[in-house]
Amino acid sequence: MVQQETHTPETRSQTLTRRFLQSRELSLTLCEPLNIEDYGLQAAAEVSPPKWHLAHTSWFYETFILKSYLDNYNCINPRFEILFNSYYQGVGPQFSRPQRGLLSRPTLEEVLEYRKLVETQIVKLIQQQGENQGLLNLVELGINHEQQHQELLLTDIKYCFSFNPLLPAYIDPRKLGADEQASPSKMVSFEGADCITGTESEAFHFDNETPAHKVYINDFKLANRLVTNGEYLEFIEDGGYQDAALWLSDGWDHINREGWKRPLYWHCRDGEWFEYTLHGLLPLQHSTPATHISYYEADAFARWAGKRLPTEFEWERAAGIYPEGRGQCLEHSIEKGCFIPQSAQTKFTLAQMIGDCWEWTSSAYAPYPGYRPLPGAVGEYNGKFMCNQYVLRGGSCVTTSEHIRTTYRNFFYPKDRWQFSGIRLAD
Amino acid sequence: MVQQETHTPETRSQTLTRRFLQSRELSLTLCEPLNIEDYGLQAAAEVSPPKWHLAHTSWFYETFILKSYLDNYNCINPRFEILFNSYYQGVGPQFSRPQRGLLSRPTLEEVLEYRKLVETQIVKLIQQQGENQGLLNLVELGINHEQQHQELLLTDIKYCFSFNPLLPAYIDPRKLGADEQASPSKMVSFEGADCITGTESEAFHFDNETPAHKVYINDFKLANRLVTNGEYLEFIEDGGYQDAALWLSDGWDHINREGWKRPLYWHCRDGEWFEYTLHGLLPLQHSTPATHISYYEADAFARWAGKRLPTEFEWERAAGIYPEGRGQCLEHSIEKGCFIPQSAQTKFTLAQMIGDCWEWTSSAYAPYPGYRPLPGAVGEYNGKFMCNQYVLRGGSCVTTSEHIRTTYRNFFYPKDRWQFSGIRLAD
Amino acid sequence: MVQQETHTPETRSQTLTRRFLQSRELSLTLCEPLNIEDYGLQAAAEVSPPKWHLAHTSWFYETFILKSYLDNYNCINPRFEILFNSYYQGVGPQFSRPQRGLLSRPTLEEVLEYRKLVETQIVKLIQQQGENQGLLNLVELGINHEQQHQELLLTDIKYCFSFNPLLPAYIDPRKLGADEQASPSKMVSFEGADCITGTESEAFHFDNETPAHKVYINDFKLANRLVTNGEYLEFIEDGGYQDAALWLSDGWDHINREGWKRPLYWHCRDGEWFEYTLHGLLPLQHSTPATHISYYEADAFARWAGKRLPTEFEWERAAGIYPEGRGQCLEHSIEKGCFIPQSAQTKFTLAQMIGDCWEWTSSAYAPYPGYRPLPGAVGEYNGKFMCNQYVLRGGSCVTTSEHIRTTYRNFFYPKDRWQFSGIRLAD
Amino acid sequence: MVQQETHTPETRSQTLTRRFLQSRELSLTLCEPLNIEDYGLQAAAEVSPPKWHLAHTSWFYETFILKSYLDNYNCINPRFEILFNSYYQGVGPQFSRPQRGLLSRPTLEEVLEYRKLVETQIVKLIQQQGENQGLLNLVELGINHEQQHQELLLTDIKYCFSFNPLLPAYIDPRKLGADEQASPSKMVSFEGADCITGTESEAFHFDNETPAHKVYINDFKLANRLVTNGEYLEFIEDGGYQDAALWLSDGWDHINREGWKRPLYWHCRDGEWFEYTLHGLLPLQHSTPATHISYYEADAFARWAGKRLPTEFEWERAAGIYPEGRGQCLEHSIEKGCFIPQSAQTKFTLAQMIGDCWEWTSSAYAPYPGYRPLPGAVGEYNGKFMCNQYVLRGGSCVTTSEHIRTTYRNFFYPKDRWQFSGIRLAD
Repeated sequence: MVQQETHTPETRSQTLTRRFLQSRELSLTLCEPLNIEDYGLQAAAEVSPPKWHLAHTSWFYETFILKSYLDNYNCINPRFEILFNSYYQGVGPQFSRPQRGLLSRPTLEEVLEYRKLVETQIVKLIQQQGENQGLLNLVELGINHEQQHQELLLTDIKYCFSFNPLLPAYIDPRKLGADEQASPSKMVSFEGADCITGTESEAFHFDNETPAHKVYINDFKLANRLVTNGEYLEFIEDGGYQDAALWLSDGWDHINREGWKRPLYWHCRDGEWFEYTLHGLLPLQHSTPATHISYYEADAFARWAGKRLPTEFEWERAAGIYPEGRGQCLEHSIEKGCFIPQSAQTKFTLAQMIGDCWEWTSSAYAPYPGYRPLPGAVGEYNGKFMCNQYVLRGGSCVTTSEHIRTTYRNFFYPKDRWQFSGIRLAD
Repeated sequence: MVQQETHTPETRSQTLTRRFLQSRELSLTLCEPLNIEDYGLQAAAEVSPPKWHLAHTSWFYETFILKSYLDNYNCINPRFEILFNSYYQGVGPQFSRPQRGLLSRPTLEEVLEYRKLVETQIVKLIQQQGENQGLLNLVELGINHEQQHQELLLTDIKYCFSFNPLLPAYIDPRKLGADEQASPSKMVSFEGADCITGTESEAFHFDNETPAHKVYINDFKLANRLVTNGEYLEFIEDGGYQDAALWLSDGWDHINREGWKRPLYWHCRDGEWFEYTLHGLLPLQHSTPATHISYYEADAFARWAGKRLPTEFEWERAAGIYPEGRGQCLEHSIEKGCFIPQSAQTKFTLAQMIGDCWEWTSSAYAPYPGYRPLPGAVGEYNGKFMCNQYVLRGGSCVTTSEHIRTTYRNFFYPKDRWQFSGIRLAD
Repeated sequence: MVQQETHTPETRSQTLTRRFLQSRELSLTLCEPLNIEDYGLQAAAEVSPPKWHLAHTSWFYETFILKSYLDNYNCINPRFEILFNSYYQGVGPQFSRPQRGLLSRPTLEEVLEYRKLVETQIVKLIQQQGENQGLLNLVELGINHEQQHQELLLTDIKYCFSFNPLLPAYIDPRKLGADEQASPSKMVSFEGADCITGTESEAFHFDNETPAHKVYINDFKLANRLVTNGEYLEFIEDGGYQDAALWLSDGWDHINREGWKRPLYWHCRDGEWFEYTLHGLLPLQHSTPATHISYYEADAFARWAGKRLPTEFEWERAAGIYPEGRGQCLEHSIEKGCFIPQSAQTKFTLAQMIGDCWEWTSSAYAPYPGYRPLPGAVGEYNGKFMCNQYVLRGGSCVTTSEHIRTTYRNFFYPKDRWQFSGIRLAD
Repeated sequence: MVQQETHTPETRSQTLTRRFLQSRELSLTLCEPLNIEDYGLQAAAEVSPPKWHLAHTSWFYETFILKSYLDNYNCINPRFEILFNSYYQGVGPQFSRPQRGLLSRPTLEEVLEYRKLVETQIVKLIQQQGENQGLLNLVELGINHEQQHQELLLTDIKYCFSFNPLLPAYIDPRKLGADEQASPSKMVSFEGADCITGTESEAFHFDNETPAHKVYINDFKLANRLVTNGEYLEFIEDGGYQDAALWLSDGWDHINREGWKRPLYWHCRDGEWFEYTLHGLLPLQHSTPATHISYYEADAFARWAGKRLPTEFEWERAAGIYPEGRGQCLEHSIEKGCFIPQSAQTKFTLAQMIGDCWEWTSSAYAPYPGYRPLPGAVGEYNGKFMCNQYVLRGGSCVTTSEHIRTTYRNFFYPKDRWQFSGIRLAD
């Protein structure tokens, strides 16, 4: 991202206009390696086609901004109100989620045209409204919303490609790091204390990070890096997937019902291990973090290792104390042409806290005390999902770095593993 | 099809080369109205994406001809052996049928290239081998195989489009007929007799039409035309879908489990009836045949009408006696630009016997006495499906007219209704 | 059954009163080996608890006779109208079929009381009405109906017991025959001819056996006995369950989805074969008929053996020509205390045609030409099931011998194998 | 319970012997109203037949005590090791859980015999071992285990009976209270503080209540009583089940998929409301607590009421401060002959905290910091279920009062509602 050289500071509306256009551009950049036939792929209900991501992120701006701020606004296409509504019951009906892959029409061309029309009107509206903070807050929400879908776009395409026996590469690797054995992880100690969790800063954050509130955190230890592929392989070779004693009851049922014996994208061919990546099938690297791990597997690994997963409060506290150890995020991935979590840099007390892999915590996703969702349909963004899911922290190699922060709460079901999710141990 | 003006009669190899190339061309012609994004659609396990049809019909030639007749033949792409094998266990493993829509790669361009390569080699092989009847038999089988997939290509795309709320038109209608009320149908009588069913002619036919054999057929009557939309609407308005006494037990369970209240593509909006067609949503025409009807519905309609469905033997006998009443087939559809079954022409004793709609018979699909499948993997073509399905006769508006004949046996499950299947009553 | 010694011949009402009481008694006799806790078992939707059979066979008399013939009839218990209605839509709603096992109330005692009340009234009604043929026809239907449920009672209890790791015996074996290797089967030849199938005799028969009608039957051969366990074991050991080429497509899908590797009740322990029977787990007898075989398996076995299954017309014709070879039926089973199909007696041209095992035919269950179901709700008895099922002929070791005849058509789905169903080969 | 009149205080072994025998007796007492046919009922996988509960609670003693403490112990029946193992992977294989209802054998008589044999040996073993605290700890665990199954026995039989259209009563009501409208609930305030949650007392408790640990609890308010049927009816009549905005996303999906419109046991007949109870179908009482409510419904009700559910920490703290308001527990139910939660007694600051209904908390079931399960297979008791479930507090009208305490953590899935689970609001 190029630094603007300017002497008068940007206004918020200028900043957000710039960031808006950059984020809109990034979505298209991420699609560049795709063939047009890839845009319609949907291999599971919870995965969306690239074209749908492109359309939905435009629908979001149209629905929550253009419709509210423009008098007598005429929808660009009334059919899109239904087709590209994800789950906002307060907005109206939604097209069947598992069937998004059946929407060969509107075509990609029409969706790109839709994007353009929305963009033009958003930019014009910001200009007209000046420093209207209510509007700008929604624009900033829209940018963050699109950033989430940029990550999903990459994880979804990886998932869909993985069903194709050709195991297509999203992009050819420019350069993969050498695979050295990672040095043993160390446990960093923290003393029990009353702490503040969550945020009330003026900077952008989601409603689920509020209110800031006190929690008492006991003494704990946190690993200085993520669990590596090499370590996870030991767990497999030690019979981890065959030993009921290591697993949660629901996890044991799940892995047996689904026949899981290894992480989502691992392959064993003639005794050699490989990992399917956005660069196609590659030999398994022992030093890079184990990723595409479900909560069930993360929890079982931790039990096998004689450890446990951290709570989200422990994680957030540690990340606040040692903010320096950032790993690979989306910009870095684009720059290096390498969309794989990277080995930990040992110079940091806590490496890889931001970037590389989302880190499962043992905290069920729940509202903070006093939590209030945003008013209106946009309040469905986070609150209604606070059940049956677990919190993940820290972002991944396909999370935009400006999108992630230490108070950020991501959430998935314990069976989910199509995200770049990994393991950091605690004790 | 233009008649060749030539004085020396064509050899069989010349005829089949010509027909081979024509049929290959027709597949592409039928795809012309599609956008590239339509080529990957798969809305149900039994439906295949257009791109897959294009590839599989080439795979068929490569597998059963090129591999057999060419020494040291190298597969065009060894991956295609699995990806485009439909169900031939004798050939080897098959890619998961319900996931064909996930094959964004190979791209359409690569598949078209694959088609070309196969075509070139087939033509060359025919030239080399001259009047090799074994080879020519397989080429003719391949042509007929591709003709079947041409029909499926149209019925599958219609089915997939129907899930899209935009209800896209495959092609704009050039001209739809006026909708006059059909005159009442008449029952044509036939006397009981020992008859020959099936064929042993030298002309092409599938193995399931053989051997010709004697069956005793009782006195029967057959309707002079297909049941119309108007008549089927009366059945609906008379509460046909609510009256258990009209239905087979399995049919009653099925329509209640699925919530069926009308034919697959009928819509009722504010009391007005519409039908989704390859031309998009159109007002329901009362005089044209009811189509996309399952066996369960056809059987219930017949019971409501105080009639029954004919056996396949009755149908074949009647069609042999009154061969004149051909309706609309694929060539006619292309020529008229109208891919909808047409009203019966009353000048014929038995109208619409060939073309317009496949006609459900009450005959379970079973081998004829003495039936022997073709030897080798190609013997899986028909024989292994002789269970749980019913025979349909007569072809439809999207069946190539040179593909269909009075001894032809099509077959589908009693719940199936995505084909152009209709009802002819018997008594 | 003991012959009545009387000089004046019995009237029909006397005969049927006697047979009615005998058949009512037999149902209770068959339940004698059960513990009270066995009466509620239901291991699958298509299987009913013994108590339900006892109640439903009484409901049948109450619903179709007492309610019709008695003025101002008051139901014994209005709740029973729903609880014990099997599938008669014309009578009214039915309690959920898969949940019959949840009816711990009414208790067995109450059901036995219900039986008594119905019996008393039926006997009284027959006495009052004298030779009312309409009434007597329904009584005879009721007797035959109860006979069918007597067979189901035994096959259902066997099925339910088979889920219990204790593999309980319904009854201890009094004496099992020695297990000699069966002599090779022979094929008996028949010449093609127009034949009459079905019946219009005055003796009792179901509506699905009518009308008698002409069919042309080609030359065929029929095996002189049923396929034995020993022969079926050869099929297994030859890899029959692993060779797709032997199976119907639906059959192959089914056995793989269900993991079938052997007949329903066969067990292999340390290389030794056993069969679960109504006498508990016994060493597999090689000379007795293979039973509890699905249509899919019967068809695959026949293909492996280079033969086929007979049509129901072939079977009926052969049974008419060689009526002498009756095997073991229910009375014999009770007498011998042996509820297992017996080895073929070689003195007969066609052994085991009646009794031992139901024999799968290749004929889909369909109405005979001109078939008309009985009027009213009782017409649902047979007609509405004429879809997706195959005809079996000849009865089994748990079919009452007075219930079975050569024109009798039983029917089950091709996947079904909890009946005593076996294989007779044809060619 | 009769007080022992003795001057020398009981030893622990004497106390536990007495309590052991009392609890064994209570299981049989609770079964007295059952018919023998009720003992085998199983209407869902998570529900067990009464006979199985009787056997499993004996298996528990045999497996964890007799096998450990008796040298060369011979199993009473080796088959029972599998049949009556619930979920202890560390012990060995288990009979299929959803099929427990198929175990008509061993008979009730055999199970009662099994119970006797286990009891005799346990009593003898305690006598032999004296004050062996390890043994006595396991005996006390076994007593508590059986107490849990006593509650399940009643909730399971209620669930199974509810499928029977006869809606059988477990027991006739001796006396139901008058139904007065409950007075409005009040919110009791608590100030934020660091608190100790969990226990390390010497009295019996489960491992999941440990270790005692500090948590910071914000200011909160807790309702002085449970939500009543009358209040819940208002929610229904206000369209609560039709308003997506009130529901968690998973809850909304669930109620629509299952067609839920009211609590599990409510019936609406001609506009009148009834509730199925252990006394059969009764008119809905407005003043008694709404019960058999899922977490999804409890959460939606709370949102509709402008409140929320308490955390388990808030609940435990409040219960510690106001210990006086105990409601109806199992002993009281037996004594009064009334197995229904009772109206709140308004004299208490916090009524109904113990007894009447389990109270859903918003706390996901998770290990306390530093939690360690018991060693060995018995450690599977609680720990492996700490995922996807929510904590309920306070016991119900069918919980033994000596079994329940303020630190007790029960847990069920958010969809579960066959327990006596109700709602206490917080703010």
